[in-house]
Amino acid sequence: MHETRSIKKIIREALAEDLGLQGDITSKALFDNTTTARAVIRSKETGILSGAYLIWPVFREIDKRVTVTPMRTEGAVLHTGAEICRIQGPIRSILAGERTVLNFLQRLSGIATATARFVSRIRGTRATLLDTRKTTPLLRLLEKRAVAAGGGSNHRFGLFDMILIKDTHVKAAGSPAQAVALAQRYRRSHPAIQIEVEVQSPEEFYDAVSSGPDRIMLDNMCCQEMRTCVAYNNKLKKPVCLEASGNVTLENIRAIAKTGVDYISSGAITHSASALDIHLVIL
Amino acid sequence: MHETRSIKKIIREALAEDLGLQGDITSKALFDNTTTARAVIRSKETGILSGAYLIWPVFREIDKRVTVTPMRTEGAVLHTGAEICRIQGPIRSILAGERTVLNFLQRLSGIATATARFVSRIRGTRATLLDTRKTTPLLRLLEKRAVAAGGGSNHRFGLFDMILIKDTHVKAAGSPAQAVALAQRYRRSHPAIQIEVEVQSPEEFYDAVSSGPDRIMLDNMCCQEMRTCVAYNNKLKKPVCLEASGNVTLENIRAIAKTGVDYISSGAITHSASALDIHLVIL
Amino acid sequence: MHETRSIKKIIREALAEDLGLQGDITSKALFDNTTTARAVIRSKETGILSGAYLIWPVFREIDKRVTVTPMRTEGAVLHTGAEICRIQGPIRSILAGERTVLNFLQRLSGIATATARFVSRIRGTRATLLDTRKTTPLLRLLEKRAVAAGGGSNHRFGLFDMILIKDTHVKAAGSPAQAVALAQRYRRSHPAIQIEVEVQSPEEFYDAVSSGPDRIMLDNMCCQEMRTCVAYNNKLKKPVCLEASGNVTLENIRAIAKTGVDYISSGAITHSASALDIHLVIL
Amino acid sequence: MHETRSIKKIIREALAEDLGLQGDITSKALFDNTTTARAVIRSKETGILSGAYLIWPVFREIDKRVTVTPMRTEGAVLHTGAEICRIQGPIRSILAGERTVLNFLQRLSGIATATARFVSRIRGTRATLLDTRKTTPLLRLLEKRAVAAGGGSNHRFGLFDMILIKDTHVKAAGSPAQAVALAQRYRRSHPAIQIEVEVQSPEEFYDAVSSGPDRIMLDNMCCQEMRTCVAYNNKLKKPVCLEASGNVTLENIRAIAKTGVDYISSGAITHSASALDIHLVIL
Amino acid sequence: MHETRSIKKIIREALAEDLGLQGDITSKALFDNTTTARAVIRSKETGILSGAYLIWPVFREIDKRVTVTPMRTEGAVLHTGAEICRIQGPIRSILAGERTVLNFLQRLSGIATATARFVSRIRGTRATLLDTRKTTPLLRLLEKRAVAAGGGSNHRFGLFDMILIKDTHVKAAGSPAQAVALAQRYRRSHPAIQIEVEVQSPEEFYDAVSSGPDRIMLDNMCCQEMRTCVAYNNKLKKPVCLEASGNVTLENIRAIAKTGVDYISSGAITHSASALDIHLVIL
Amino acid sequence: MHETRSIKKIIREALAEDLGLQGDITSKALFDNTTTARAVIRSKETGILSGAYLIWPVFREIDKRVTVTPMRTEGAVLHTGAEICRIQGPIRSILAGERTVLNFLQRLSGIATATARFVSRIRGTRATLLDTRKTTPLLRLLEKRAVAAGGGSNHRFGLFDMILIKDTHVKAAGSPAQAVALAQRYRRSHPAIQIEVEVQSPEEFYDAVSSGPDRIMLDNMCCQEMRTCVAYNNKLKKPVCLEASGNVTLENIRAIAKTGVDYISSGAITHSASALDIHLVIL
Repeated sequence: MHETRSIKKIIREALAEDLGLQGDITSKALFDNTTTARAVIRSKETGILSGAYLIWPVFREIDKRVTVTPMRTEGAVLHTGAEICRIQGPIRSILAGERTVLNFLQRLSGIATATARFVSRIRGTRATLLDTRKTTPLLRLLEKRAVAAGGGSNHRFGLFDMILIKDTHVKAAGSPAQAVALAQRYRRSHPAIQIEVEVQSPEEFYDAVSSGPDRIMLDNMCCQEMRTCVAYNNKLKKPVCLEASGNVTLENIRAIAKTGVDYISSGAITHSASALDIHLVIL
Repeated sequence: MHETRSIKKIIREALAEDLGLQGDITSKALFDNTTTARAVIRSKETGILSGAYLIWPVFREIDKRVTVTPMRTEGAVLHTGAEICRIQGPIRSILAGERTVLNFLQRLSGIATATARFVSRIRGTRATLLDTRKTTPLLRLLEKRAVAAGGGSNHRFGLFDMILIKDTHVKAAGSPAQAVALAQRYRRSHPAIQIEVEVQSPEEFYDAVSSGPDRIMLDNMCCQEMRTCVAYNNKLKKPVCLEASGNVTLENIRAIAKTGVDYISSGAITHSASALDIHLVIL
Repeated sequence: MHETRSIKKIIREALAEDLGLQGDITSKALFDNTTTARAVIRSKETGILSGAYLIWPVFREIDKRVTVTPMRTEGAVLHTGAEICRIQGPIRSILAGERTVLNFLQRLSGIATATARFVSRIRGTRATLLDTRKTTPLLRLLEKRAVAAGGGSNHRFGLFDMILIKDTHVKAAGSPAQAVALAQRYRRSHPAIQIEVEVQSPEEFYDAVSSGPDRIMLDNMCCQEMRTCVAYNNKLKKPVCLEASGNVTLENIRAIAKTGVDYISSGAITHSASALDIHLVIL
Repeated sequence: MHETRSIKKIIREALAEDLGLQGDITSKALFDNTTTARAVIRSKETGILSGAYLIWPVFREIDKRVTVTPMRTEGAVLHTGAEICRIQGPIRSILAGERTVLNFLQRLSGIATATARFVSRIRGTRATLLDTRKTTPLLRLLEKRAVAAGGGSNHRFGLFDMILIKDTHVKAAGSPAQAVALAQRYRRSHPAIQIEVEVQSPEEFYDAVSSGPDRIMLDNMCCQEMRTCVAYNNKLKKPVCLEASGNVTLENIRAIAKTGVDYISSGAITHSASALDIHLVIL
Repeated sequence: MHETRSIKKIIREALAEDLGLQGDITSKALFDNTTTARAVIRSKETGILSGAYLIWPVFREIDKRVTVTPMRTEGAVLHTGAEICRIQGPIRSILAGERTVLNFLQRLSGIATATARFVSRIRGTRATLLDTRKTTPLLRLLEKRAVAAGGGSNHRFGLFDMILIKDTHVKAAGSPAQAVALAQRYRRSHPAIQIEVEVQSPEEFYDAVSSGPDRIMLDNMCCQEMRTCVAYNNKLKKPVCLEASGNVTLENIRAIAKTGVDYISSGAITHSASALDIHLVIL
Repeated sequence: MHETRSIKKIIREALAEDLGLQGDITSKALFDNTTTARAVIRSKETGILSGAYLIWPVFREIDKRVTVTPMRTEGAVLHTGAEICRIQGPIRSILAGERTVLNFLQRLSGIATATARFVSRIRGTRATLLDTRKTTPLLRLLEKRAVAAGGGSNHRFGLFDMILIKDTHVKAAGSPAQAVALAQRYRRSHPAIQIEVEVQSPEEFYDAVSSGPDRIMLDNMCCQEMRTCVAYNNKLKKPVCLEASGNVTLENIRAIAKTGVDYISSGAITHSASALDIHLVIL
């Protein structure tokens, strides 16, 4: 599919970073170009797999003789020792791609795993977990896919595909409702765009809701404040979607979800996920 | 300096990811192109700063009218509330670059902070902390700089600038010494290259040391084994450098350092560092 | 502003196409590199200006010594003979950029002019003119700006920023409502997305409207059918936006607008606009 | 063949423009990745086909599983309903490429059709129809091919492959003959280059012809003036090629051709051609 | 001027090759970023300068603080010790660019010097020295400029800007005249193109000249044969240009020129020129 | 293998340079796209082959229908008339790639041949021939391979992979030993790096050797001075590697080697090698 074009570019640059112009000089010194081997990629921890779709493209970029047999798919639960894939081909080429493949898998599976942990806490509530734009520069597309693999949903991709009015915009416009009004004026000539506005208090919420945005972000509110907003919203003839945001942790996410909001967004699932321990073993 | 060329490319692609072809539609809807503002980037946690050298280039790429006044330099200790820089310029352009700048600063300062924590534990010993190739794809150069900002040193950059013989190579060659001999043969026609060999036991160490590598990696040994190797090495007329590797944690790093090794390498400082909490405030 | 990055790339490739590796050999043969001249870009027809923001970047790419003084801005009405800008600098550099600048201005102003003609016909109605994805490959961003300069609005940018369910999708899903239901399921994990569905008859419209899309496209309906849909829609507690599409001409657009639809989309304003006659005169 | 390299780049950027990083979200929402379909591309108007060589490369770029069976070749006459090609493959991939393919085909076939209309008017005369550099930025190569498909010939490709002395150059040099003399001096060190000079009157023509250019452009002359020039030229021992240029229309092109000129060049065939109506139908 | 765009790219890639991602580690280890120095680039041999226009762009690419004062221009005669330019700026940046600048200057001045040597041998004859396509891959533009700096002229740039019929084409077509006829048919639809045909004997020459090409290449003929062709040609009402080619050396070029040919082409001036010895001295 | 990525880029740009956007117009004019031919690449001189690994990739880039059968491998001795490879495929595509392939082969085989000549002179001594950074811009990787094909070894690749302290650095630091000390301080945080220092006299050598570099370059010393240094070095408990540099010629290289140095480096093998005469013959 076409969208692999940008992924192909990421893979090429990742390999260029590791291989330079001279290539893997250790393997050149120690193996000839025809010795083949079999290898397996395994998880050393329990977690959720993400990034498996990159394994074959990385090795194909290095050497078309390498074959990859997938054993688990995107989003699969990995137990310790679970095989992610089997690899066969020239040992030089397997080793040339090893670190790049693992760096991708470890980070992305780390994000999927963190996401799954948050999602498991809000099971049974109406809330959906969203990611943010707090992703690693150049890897946003991959990290948003990892969030999906972990059971989360994707917020806007970037600054270009949704109007999200933050407190700076609100201050400049005068009030949430006035900011939304300006955004609606802009939307008149770009009707394919949604409008969300961030509010910091129930008072701002009352103001915002009157102006008819598509979604309202309840930023850094305590649960009591959020409940107040939810209650008010539910009485409206046409309630808007509500999103909770700010300092969401594994400890407090269930309480937030129980206030009745539709979405909870978390930057930590992308910016502070630990790598999942995954390794490649030559058989 | 020239080396900013690859950094410039990273910045451009990071901005492209966030801005798409349409740009920041929220700010377009709410601000005109001439309204200016002042802003400050501050840390919300204690840590070590890395990535500050990216702030000005990001904003210059967006809009040459934005000025950036640095308040802290690479490697500085940040206390909660510390100002990293002050920014002045069109508010649209400040907001267009905000998230990209923060995504860089948070990750890189997170790495510098994690590194500094490990380094502080081995102060007073002869050991130096090294990074690995377990870095985020496409950001290796920046992450290696962050390790330096945190007081660590840099291992080889990639597969191309040092021969590092791992267990797979050792197995294929027969023994560490035989692998080193093959590497030395290769070096004859590329004399500007160092040779390191990984060993898993004192027995392998004795074998490896006899072949004259530049460095030996003691992989996943317990402290007792490492002490045995260090003692043996110190009695040699020409001792080789020793590097400890594998499962290095904040808890065990001091004990490892006290075995007398020259280097300790850690993947966790790059692959599992949490973001440092840094934000931008419009004044 | 950052978004000029993709524009910069377009300009560079347009110049490369005209100049090759050898440059403008005629001017090299006839002028030295220091002879300067003054020039003016003028319209030879009445129309709407678009693309003026490209003039300075084209010449700056060629030679930083060229200065450009704009006389009209994006969206301005041009009468025959109207000055678009004045240019001063080395004559070689002015001539090297002449054709590239004019090729942009003629096409984009042609689109803005065609758009303005359609817009003038629906003045006083509630309908807004929208463009489509029927744009020149590689120039979509510029052509959508030209539509805006002519008083039109922009439909979705590409396949990635809105769900637009066409008849093929409807057939595969079974009915408009079933297709919308599938789209809504997808939206659950990508909540920043709008849903539009295309219908070909009032019957399909009744089915579609029940499923709650954000917008419904009335494709190739006659005015009587559209009026039926508008009337039905207006009686709903929560009417959806309606867009007319298909064979929109200068002759029938006012009648379509009077049916009461919110939007009318036209491919002809981009794919079949004639160039506006604009030339550059060396003074 | 190698020249498809630049075409490949055009295709990739055209697809990137339409698909963004996220791809075709509508089809993702409504179809799975394995549902296949058959489709046909048909003309809805009578005209000349150009751009058919792009269909397969566009779909291959998206998905190698799509097969394309061509039914008409470059330059073929299309009657209403004529099949251009048949397509089979995953429906998601067919829909992902549909608009890009049609945008190319419609524009290029529009140019071929306009060209053929002009060419048909000068059949039986000695004149050949030429294009100009008034092409869509970035698409010159494709548009010049479309002119050839329609039966026209290609003037110089850009500023780099022929010396074409225009009135500005003539004025600076003093007279056409003096300008040609300067060009001939330049040609001494670049002998693989042709020289053409533009003249605005028979007087300038007499001057120009004496200096021995390869071709003379009769710019904006009336037919009577052109006949005067042709007659004078025919009496010369070594007549030069003559090209008529300026305000060439379907109405006056036959009269121009009958003056006896060798070439007639027209910008309108590229800059003001309407799209040919072509569509893709899922069977 | 625009054409520096491709030169800029060459410079960037040349620097990337020498500096990698890590930069000049020696200077980093030994100098701080602010120590400045003055330097001079001098020739250590007698020759002709080419490539001086690259010096400033190389250093500007590295560091905008470096200033370059040119002392000699393109094509200047260099005596031993002649100053080519003076440089001032941070010593790190001067050293970072030193080798790249010298590698360009040495090769290009070597070509200019070799060219000048050949040109000096044919002074006073009617012959002009031409280069060929036997240039270093990626550097053709620069090498053709070096030929011009040495007093030579440029043959076609590549396969795309002139028809040059070689013996393989002749064989396939049947005879030189038949090959020229095919080329003339092609030229009908691309009239901005010259036609040259290669012949290996006077007999082929008689055949070729009858078909009216723009130029005839006398390939690997002895001087006697060339004289025969020249004499025949001079008796024609409309003589064609003649080019001698094949095994041209400093020893035989004057004899070839005296046969009366218009051009003599030599591959050796580009493919076998020795570097001119040029160095950079820190003062 | 991955490292062909940068080679692929070089090939593409070399072809683009020769083919432009229009391609090989001569072959287009004279052959149709299906006529096939067989060809052979042969050497017309005795020498060493380098660059044969580029032949197939060049033709594959042009046309996948071309097949290449290699007859000699990298480093093979070529006698006059030796077949390098056989080629079969569309004649248009063979001719489109001919010059590009030959330009690579001639230059690289020229370098391999020059290298082999130097190497043959030092057979039986302990010295190894090294190349330098005096390579053609953009082709360093290929030229370093050509040196290896000719039996030489590769010095550092660029400024980034070894510390080489030159006289400018020595002067700034005060003495060779002080410069080495600074480099060693830098190496502490980049332990994967070797240090070499250049000395101009035995006195500097004594100073340098005391500081423990990995290698010492004896620059422009006479053989007597070199012997003095070698003798001194051999008496040390831990001798360092010695490299002779400066004005190395075919005449003096054996005398230099006999002084007992480990390495001799020569710029002339890359910057002043003549092309080896190689041609392609259509059968």
